[in-house]
Amino acid sequence: NFTRGLQTVTLIPGDGIGPEISSAVVKIFEAAKAPIQWEEKNVTAIKGPGGKWMIPPEAKESMDKSKIGLKGPLKTPIAAGHPSMNLLLRKTFDLYANVRPCVSIEGYKTPYTDVDLVTIRENTEGEYSGIEHVIVDGVVQSIKLITEDASRRIAEYAFEYARNNQRSSVTAVHKANIMRMSDGLFLRKCREVAENFKDIKFTEMYLDTVCLNMVQDPSQFDVLVMPNLYGDILSDLCAGLIGGLGVTPSGNIGANGVAIFESVHGTAPDIAGKDLANPTALLLSAVMMLRHMGLHGHAQKIETACFDTIRDKKFLTKDLGGNSKCSEFTGEICRRVQDMD
Amino acid sequence: NFTRGLQTVTLIPGDGIGPEISSAVVKIFEAAKAPIQWEEKNVTAIKGPGGKWMIPPEAKESMDKSKIGLKGPLKTPIAAGHPSMNLLLRKTFDLYANVRPCVSIEGYKTPYTDVDLVTIRENTEGEYSGIEHVIVDGVVQSIKLITEDASRRIAEYAFEYARNNQRSSVTAVHKANIMRMSDGLFLRKCREVAENFKDIKFTEMYLDTVCLNMVQDPSQFDVLVMPNLYGDILSDLCAGLIGGLGVTPSGNIGANGVAIFESVHGTAPDIAGKDLANPTALLLSAVMMLRHMGLHGHAQKIETACFDTIRDKKFLTKDLGGNSKCSEFTGEICRRVQDMD
Ligand SMILES: CC(C)[C@H](C(=O)O)[C@@H](O)C(=O)O
Ligand SMILES: CC(C)[C@H](C(=O)O)[C@@H](O)C(=O)O
Repeated sequence: NFTRGLQTVTLIPGDGIGPEISSAVVKIFEAAKAPIQWEEKNVTAIKGPGGKWMIPPEAKESMDKSKIGLKGPLKTPIAAGHPSMNLLLRKTFDLYANVRPCVSIEGYKTPYTDVDLVTIRENTEGEYSGIEHVIVDGVVQSIKLITEDASRRIAEYAFEYARNNQRSSVTAVHKANIMRMSDGLFLRKCREVAENFKDIKFTEMYLDTVCLNMVQDPSQFDVLVMPNLYGDILSDLCAGLIGGLGVTPSGNIGANGVAIFESVHGTAPDIAGKDLANPTALLLSAVMMLRHMGLHGHAQKIETACFDTIRDKKFLTKDLGGNSKCSEFTGEICRRVQDMD
Repeated sequence: NFTRGLQTVTLIPGDGIGPEISSAVVKIFEAAKAPIQWEEKNVTAIKGPGGKWMIPPEAKESMDKSKIGLKGPLKTPIAAGHPSMNLLLRKTFDLYANVRPCVSIEGYKTPYTDVDLVTIRENTEGEYSGIEHVIVDGVVQSIKLITEDASRRIAEYAFEYARNNQRSSVTAVHKANIMRMSDGLFLRKCREVAENFKDIKFTEMYLDTVCLNMVQDPSQFDVLVMPNLYGDILSDLCAGLIGGLGVTPSGNIGANGVAIFESVHGTAPDIAGKDLANPTALLLSAVMMLRHMGLHGHAQKIETACFDTIRDKKFLTKDLGGNSKCSEFTGEICRRVQDMD
């Protein structure tokens, strides 16, 4: 993973605005002298032996070596039976924890000013098992799969995350009043793990109650851990509170340091190639990546430059309420990063 | 159902603050000369033959005759294996549609001022099937059941509701990108039914996207229709936007006019019996009930008196930001209702 002090990262620029925002990140990393060497790869799925969809071997090999990926948006596949590339990536590299910090951004007005929480989503099972049957004509079952191992693993991840990031509480989000066995198992594992983290406050709350309380007062939440689908919902809800997917970073974390960081917004084909895209979500994901790699100084610098640029309001892209091009916004962040030296 | 021009309604006061807020509603109905005769019943579940939990026969018979119920909050049962009474009621009377209008209340400040939408939740199947298995030790499956019939029925209800209530669009909320067969079936039925309602605009949206858009701009939504669990989540989220469960009405609608209207907040045992409770959610549920019974004039009067009282701010209960007792708030609504004559 190291070449002359550089760490290799697999860069998956993605579709639509993906290439523009990826090169914005690369430029800012250069300005910050981040010791990263990019290995650019395409991940358009291919059909492997037996007709199974798979990640192209070149991209897989790069990730296997580098262990760390940064990924732009991918267009949703249209071929019938073609899996979502996002899901295929999570599966291929067993990225079991999806982590999304949501923090209010000073200078970007939303109805909320004091959001500072992290959703941690189990990323491998639950409602995403993909197991469905037609029982008889007009009657369909989908199976939600909850296992002890995956539940313990994500609970441990959440508590360790809380401890390592100076956060004081973990809330398990569930519907064990309805799904007594499956969510019950998930909740039991969270309770068990909580026993080993006496320094972290543990609470449990129904998903519906969390949603209600979240829109009334998000400041009451800290780290939230939950099964797959609930995380899908809640992470988007929380992103909405701070300004949407254009400013929200995301990380998919696996075992042994493997991780892919990604912006979770769409490919925005309408503005692709026009130098109008906002690279913030991908940039903040890349900042998460730097922290994951232990490069805290570089992370801090880039994050500060990004937030200062937004607070300052002089170089904002259209979606952030400004008139600047992607390259101007990027240039301003680079300037601020260099000024810090 | 008629006695001397009066229609009978089964009144289930419920637990905790239930009796206080129920008698507030009864008083306001008297002041408004609503042609309702109340038949008060308790619904504490009993064990029937074969050990099955059931609604007490007296309450069941009353509902079978009156067809219409008004229900306060019920305490969550603590006996193992004891079902939620709310779920048992929905099941016993096949109340397949849960309807929750969420409208911003003038004078009650929240971060949103322009909410005006209705969530329509399938109330009988989906994730609430209650079917769960342990496959092997540490591996649990919960089954989500989606049927063609229930999906068509709720879709038809939603479109008819939209048409009858001068609403212009219906959005189907789903995760058919993940649960392709089950949510796919639900969505297909919505699309089919939409064909018969060309006067109503039909759109479809992922649940996560709805949540994100909802907290950014709820005014874009009108009628939303969705499977059971999604409705549980989204109805609470939307309640949060307008001030919480204390001000949000709810109706559970079945076939042939059968319906139970209820406040969905808790029993608030800490303030029970102290004349401090806020009867708004139950009162607005009772207003929905009056409309369901065709008593539009009485509904309008009571609703106006309630909203005027809140806007006026002189007689608010504590949770609404005031200092008044339940009886004072109720008295003011009665006075306003009588003034309208
Ligand atoms: C793209 C889609 C399959 C995915 C999901 O449902 O998990 C997305 O919504 C997400 O949150 O990453
Ligand atoms: C009480 C509980 C079983 C119920 C549910 O989950 O449906 C409640 O949250 C609701 O929305 O009515």
